Amino acid sequence: MARALVSHLDESGQMHELLSHRARAAESSAIRDLLRHAEAPGVLSLAGGLPSAAMFPVADVKQAADCALSERSTLQYGLSEGSADLRAILAGPDGDPSRVVVTTGSQQALDLLGRVLLDPGDQIVVPDPCYVGARQALGSTGAVLVGVDGDVDGLDTDSLADRLADGLSPKAVYVVANFDNPSGAVLAAGRRRMLTALAERYGFVIIEDDPYGALRYDGTPVDDVGPASDNVVRLRTVSKTIAPGLRVGWMSGPDWLMDAAVVAKQSVDLHTSTVTQAIVGRLLGENEWLDNHLAGLRPWYRAQRDAMVEALDTDLADAEFGVPEGGMFLWVRLPGVDTTTLLRSAIETGVAFVPGSAFAVDRNLSEYLRLSFATVDRCEMSVAVDRLAESVARAA
Amino acid sequence: MARALVSHLDESGQMHELLSHRARAAESSAIRDLLRHAEAPGVLSLAGGLPSAAMFPVADVKQAADCALSERSTLQYGLSEGSADLRAILAGPDGDPSRVVVTTGSQQALDLLGRVLLDPGDQIVVPDPCYVGARQALGSTGAVLVGVDGDVDGLDTDSLADRLADGLSPKAVYVVANFDNPSGAVLAAGRRRMLTALAERYGFVIIEDDPYGALRYDGTPVDDVGPASDNVVRLRTVSKTIAPGLRVGWMSGPDWLMDAAVVAKQSVDLHTSTVTQAIVGRLLGENEWLDNHLAGLRPWYRAQRDAMVEALDTDLADAEFGVPEGGMFLWVRLPGVDTTTLLRSAIETGVAFVPGSAFAVDRNLSEYLRLSFATVDRCEMSVAVDRLAESVARAA
Repeated sequence: MARALVSHLDESGQMHELLSHRARAAESSAIRDLLRHAEAPGVLSLAGGLPSAAMFPVADVKQAADCALSERSTLQYGLSEGSADLRAILAGPDGDPSRVVVTTGSQQALDLLGRVLLDPGDQIVVPDPCYVGARQALGSTGAVLVGVDGDVDGLDTDSLADRLADGLSPKAVYVVANFDNPSGAVLAAGRRRMLTALAERYGFVIIEDDPYGALRYDGTPVDDVGPASDNVVRLRTVSKTIAPGLRVGWMSGPDWLMDAAVVAKQSVDLHTSTVTQAIVGRLLGENEWLDNHLAGLRPWYRAQRDAMVEALDTDLADAEFGVPEGGMFLWVRLPGVDTTTLLRSAIETGVAFVPGSAFAVDRNLSEYLRLSFATVDRCEMSVAVDRLAESVARAA
Repeated sequence: MARALVSHLDESGQMHELLSHRARAAESSAIRDLLRHAEAPGVLSLAGGLPSAAMFPVADVKQAADCALSERSTLQYGLSEGSADLRAILAGPDGDPSRVVVTTGSQQALDLLGRVLLDPGDQIVVPDPCYVGARQALGSTGAVLVGVDGDVDGLDTDSLADRLADGLSPKAVYVVANFDNPSGAVLAAGRRRMLTALAERYGFVIIEDDPYGALRYDGTPVDDVGPASDNVVRLRTVSKTIAPGLRVGWMSGPDWLMDAAVVAKQSVDLHTSTVTQAIVGRLLGENEWLDNHLAGLRPWYRAQRDAMVEALDTDLADAEFGVPEGGMFLWVRLPGVDTTTLLRSAIETGVAFVPGSAFAVDRNLSEYLRLSFATVDRCEMSVAVDRLAESVARAA
């Protein structure tokens, strides 16, 4: 064995034979490349789900940091499950802090759940289209991602029920029930109840990823997925509501699952930064701070969304899309256009988006694209959509 | 399959059948339990490798945070490999920032390297005794940890050479070359050269974990392990020099390995907090700030070490140990004492330590214990060692 390695090294001078199967199979990093595009000078980005920097509560974060750092324990090692103060705040007055685990953003929760639930070959149901980061984290375990279609009411639970009856046996179902990424759909109340019933009947976990739930601009909230079910683990984050750079998320779920996740987390990064946990704890612990902050954030994003919808209606009459009641994204179909091909010329024209195929599990989504209305300055929204229309016209 | 799950759930009402093999095999979380012991009221902790909170540069961190948060980009998403500013500072004027990856503490670097290098059944050499967090992160991949003994000069590279010649074929060798945890040993210069030559001959990676290198109190620094070798990845952190709560570490190594680690990191937590990265960048970017800070830190820890050595010489004459030239730990042998049994009564007496068996790979280390001289207030050092001596006397 050693000899084989040595001879390989002698021939090519390279070491990447040493990479694990998982590393060799890893998807090229779509989000990262997109962030690069989005950062190129002169490019208006409708691509990444970056919240509006203009709405970061900078002064409040500064003050929270200053107060937090007055306690030396803020700079010390902490517990893997998260700081007791923050977990109590996150659980709320009626919740159980022992069921809350603080994570380095929701992305880490996905990674931890993949580790503790999925063996290679296991099945996990994901919506098709599906958030890229979930596909990466859950798929890197060697589990089989089974795509289930959705519509304006979210994941098609009838179709899921049929497939379960036919023998599909997933360990988990991943869902973004509120303002799905990329589709913008809200899972209908009846489907939430049906999904929970299926989970309890067939014995799988519902991974409910909810980064956008607080960002509702119209309509009425829908009841949580399985609020009292022990089959649900709920993922939350401050990335879209306060700031992603803090890297503070959390999940709450049944004891057996949280306990396993904490053991895994210890091995992964010991714990999430006690500094950023303390900042978030100070903000969320202040009476009505979050409500007040959200009261400013929602109309801002509503106006962003409306500006994008208006620009599309004006400049891109062929575009087909629904208007989401919240979140950050429009999921747009351009009949007859291959959006992956379109991206290159769009970037040359000075605008970026995410092509539908980046989210595809099994479906052909080459005519779709995801547009974020969160990031671009409002005064530039029509310029961005103009550029998009221009690149579409050139592609025709 | 689904049916089997359902019937299981009906009988026991439990879901942990759903856990992955890895989660079920996970070691009970030794460090975490120890942190719990260390935090019990009235217990003086010689257990965890917690730096002295008294030496956290609180005012400087506060100011750095305030400046860093004046730029809105500090709160936004960042690149998976880390912020460009910080990577340039970490690489230094002669280094290559593209070979530097920022991690959420060194613990995450160990996890990422495990992911991208190790498949189940692969071999990885670790020192015996070995840092618990490395064992967890590297072992959780399903790789086989092969322990190699060491002595006062660190890992026995002659023994390693023999085993390689006999067919041992590791993908990597893990080593803490400077002030090893727990042994305190410094890998001798000749052994560093031999280890590098073996890595290049047999085609394995040297994972050089160096959290303590800057904390040298006596003697002269030894040349780096393979400073120009493409077979070395070096792990660094601010956890022991500035503050662990920031969760900022970094690694530098060959392109093929750093590229794979960045793809894995994106899936794991997107990126390390841009807030804590910016704080560290401001501190390390300030001319001579770190040198000045270390100039205060080293005599402090030297005095801590000397106080512990003096107390042991006075109170525990049977204890056998060498005096390390740096780091945070004394590695102590108590002939005839089972230190795991001792721990329980020691905690009752009001002092905590880590029993040797926590670090054992294949060896029997039941007579050893690791004492940290970093955490306890100096005025309480003799009280802590008194209590330890008292529990040893009771155990005899």
